[in-house]
Amino acid sequence: MGLQEDLIAALDADRVVTGADELRRHGTDEGWHPPAAPDFVVYPRDTEEAARVVRVCKAHAAPIVPFGAGTSLEGHVAALRGGVCVDTGLMNQILRLSVPDMDVTVQAGVTRRQLDQRLRPEGVFFSVDPGADASLGGMVATGASGTTSVRYGTMRENVLSLTVVTADGEIVRTRSRARKSSAGYDLTRLLIGSEGTLALITEITLRVQPTPESMTAAACAFGTLDAAVDTVIEVLAHALPVARIELLDEVQIDAVNRHFDLQLHVAPTLLLEFHGTPAETEAQAKDVQAIAGGHGALGFDWAADEAERRRLWHARHGAYEAGRALRPGCEAFTTDACVPISNLAACIKETKADLDASGLIAPILGHVGDGNFHLTILVDPTDESELRRARALNDRLVRRAIAYDGTCTGEHGVGYGKIPFVELEHGPAALAMMRAVKAALDPAGLFNPGKVLGPLPD
Amino acid sequence: MGLQEDLIAALDADRVVTGADELRRHGTDEGWHPPAAPDFVVYPRDTEEAARVVRVCKAHAAPIVPFGAGTSLEGHVAALRGGVCVDTGLMNQILRLSVPDMDVTVQAGVTRRQLDQRLRPEGVFFSVDPGADASLGGMVATGASGTTSVRYGTMRENVLSLTVVTADGEIVRTRSRARKSSAGYDLTRLLIGSEGTLALITEITLRVQPTPESMTAAACAFGTLDAAVDTVIEVLAHALPVARIELLDEVQIDAVNRHFDLQLHVAPTLLLEFHGTPAETEAQAKDVQAIAGGHGALGFDWAADEAERRRLWHARHGAYEAGRALRPGCEAFTTDACVPISNLAACIKETKADLDASGLIAPILGHVGDGNFHLTILVDPTDESELRRARALNDRLVRRAIAYDGTCTGEHGVGYGKIPFVELEHGPAALAMMRAVKAALDPAGLFNPGKVLGPLPD
Repeated sequence: MGLQEDLIAALDADRVVTGADELRRHGTDEGWHPPAAPDFVVYPRDTEEAARVVRVCKAHAAPIVPFGAGTSLEGHVAALRGGVCVDTGLMNQILRLSVPDMDVTVQAGVTRRQLDQRLRPEGVFFSVDPGADASLGGMVATGASGTTSVRYGTMRENVLSLTVVTADGEIVRTRSRARKSSAGYDLTRLLIGSEGTLALITEITLRVQPTPESMTAAACAFGTLDAAVDTVIEVLAHALPVARIELLDEVQIDAVNRHFDLQLHVAPTLLLEFHGTPAETEAQAKDVQAIAGGHGALGFDWAADEAERRRLWHARHGAYEAGRALRPGCEAFTTDACVPISNLAACIKETKADLDASGLIAPILGHVGDGNFHLTILVDPTDESELRRARALNDRLVRRAIAYDGTCTGEHGVGYGKIPFVELEHGPAALAMMRAVKAALDPAGLFNPGKVLGPLPD
Repeated sequence: MGLQEDLIAALDADRVVTGADELRRHGTDEGWHPPAAPDFVVYPRDTEEAARVVRVCKAHAAPIVPFGAGTSLEGHVAALRGGVCVDTGLMNQILRLSVPDMDVTVQAGVTRRQLDQRLRPEGVFFSVDPGADASLGGMVATGASGTTSVRYGTMRENVLSLTVVTADGEIVRTRSRARKSSAGYDLTRLLIGSEGTLALITEITLRVQPTPESMTAAACAFGTLDAAVDTVIEVLAHALPVARIELLDEVQIDAVNRHFDLQLHVAPTLLLEFHGTPAETEAQAKDVQAIAGGHGALGFDWAADEAERRRLWHARHGAYEAGRALRPGCEAFTTDACVPISNLAACIKETKADLDASGLIAPILGHVGDGNFHLTILVDPTDESELRRARALNDRLVRRAIAYDGTCTGEHGVGYGKIPFVELEHGPAALAMMRAVKAALDPAGLFNPGKVLGPLPD
């Protein structure tokens, strides 16, 4: 039988889709890289069905490209060699939750907001917040992080165990639910950030956190970028457990002021969130205020009440939209450098000078506690020269970040957009190790071909 | 030339050792598994020299067994097929430290206490504390953790980057110093816990933490084990950031009372440490006291001053010795099960019943916030039947832990002592993935042969 017949036999006809619009949508993410449609989109309901799909694909030597919410940015879902897109949309069950153990097991297609709704009444929450309403499977695959990583860690610190389908179509659970283990190689962490190139992720056991009794926020503007970053370094050196500490540059502040009708001081600004008991969040805010004052902060707006906190963080979460609204009709080209924090101010300042020289517009925001910052370069999609300049700007930024002992991608992943930088960052011998691992676990090269390690499409 | 001549050419004659006592010592760890001496012990001084050694071993197809402080427990350093022991004792330089970035780079042979002495005057500390004065290289290789993991994490959360020598003798740095990265496969975490079987670790970049302004301790006895564990679950559910929360059973408390001339209540006891400002540690202690009171605690001895704190934790750190002193001349057979905390009380109680039925003596202590506990089974080394009963008790304990969705080893690693349990825990398909990774990165099988995945010695 042909591939299509076998896929239908493995699932059913309704869940093997070939409509052109559906194919196109599934090969497209939210980034600027050219999309590539798969030949089929399939919707397994559980691990066993996903394993059947992998076995069919193996028999037909068909590529397997996983698809969660389609919110990735580096072309992760582009089916560069066609094949079968595995949409996890029907794998949307929350399978178990243990509040005493502070862990939850979900199918790969469960989204962050769906999980949040299930957890909230139980007094716990899942901490990793990349902004988009991504699927948890996608967040594992890209090693996602976000605004709360400074306190609660990234996906790498918050995944206990995975269930995956191997290239042979076997089902593997990588780890028990024990909080720690030294029993053999860490397959869990090897698969986090592997972008669907080593195995197909179907279930995830995540750590959850107790919901803080009190959450408050603050905004704090500075005359210079250095002062803002030095404040962050001192906050971290005092072990103040800030839940979020985000940097917005003056262009980004201007954008959110316009978009959300705010009156924030147009200057480099830290946006903070504090979690704890009311006494703790108050003490944290005062400590941060004192440190910021020592670095010449222009003010410290403490949003102790919930409405005010939500207003501030709504603006932060809408920063990307607000940035795009600075130039209606533009496309956003997002960068993702991450450097040691002692190099952050220098790296951002050199990048801003480079940006000014390029004639492009790009608000900057950063998960500054992690040394990670994003430029949202606003590009006219009808102007080839702008896209070329944006690419060149990003290329120089990546080289600068690597020279500062940082990385080309703090949290968005490689997809096929950042492949040339992986070797630049790690060197040929490390690449050889990665290629050996890929060849060992996916000898036929069917899992998301052309991603992470290439080769690049022609 | 022969292997010995080539090793001398790679280093120098003084650093290629063949004395029988030295060979024997280097094939022996602190556990109860039969030792096995290497043919040579070599002492490289840096990564470049270590790479030369690996290239020589590759040319002669000689096994390469790394040796740090020799404090492992599962036969990790036994040279099961002879070959070359790489002692990292001369790789003892602290290469760089950045307080703003809160990270430090060390050679693999630096020990925990040596690092602590260097860090202390800088107002920072390295958090992972396995008890023994292990080498950092060994702690990476075994994925070590210990008493502070409940708050600060294990080695997996505290290693930023590694420099390693591959099976080809190439030098690879696995990662930049950026706090987070999504650039390619996570070689760093793949190598943590790989016990020298995939590459030779030569340098490590670690996260450090700000030294807390105040550290206080408390001891809290309970009428039942359930009450102690329920207290821990509630403490964690309240997000109280206890730095240490250790369980000692009544046998262990009796042992430390005798050994350290203490008068602790002989009952299941939690030993706690609090880190923070003086106000925070006081608030944490009061909150824990209230929770413990709700579970019928028999008392709550808060050691607010430093001398009292040190006395309590000195007793905890000496618990192993104190246990052994219960039966002079005995050997200690240490177990390492770890289960989800909701299963911990049941798992320990069944294990105690099994222990009582076996006629053996074993104090129990646990990193209870992680669900990890150790029996120190006191065995007369001249009595074969005791060792047999201890093995059988451990075997049943491992199966019980796995049945409770836990692991055969929370922190000691596999070595060759726990190989039979790795497949039991993970299943054959996961083992096949691990074996594929091993074959890909060490095709000649020279890195610490016979460890983690076997095969077992005849």
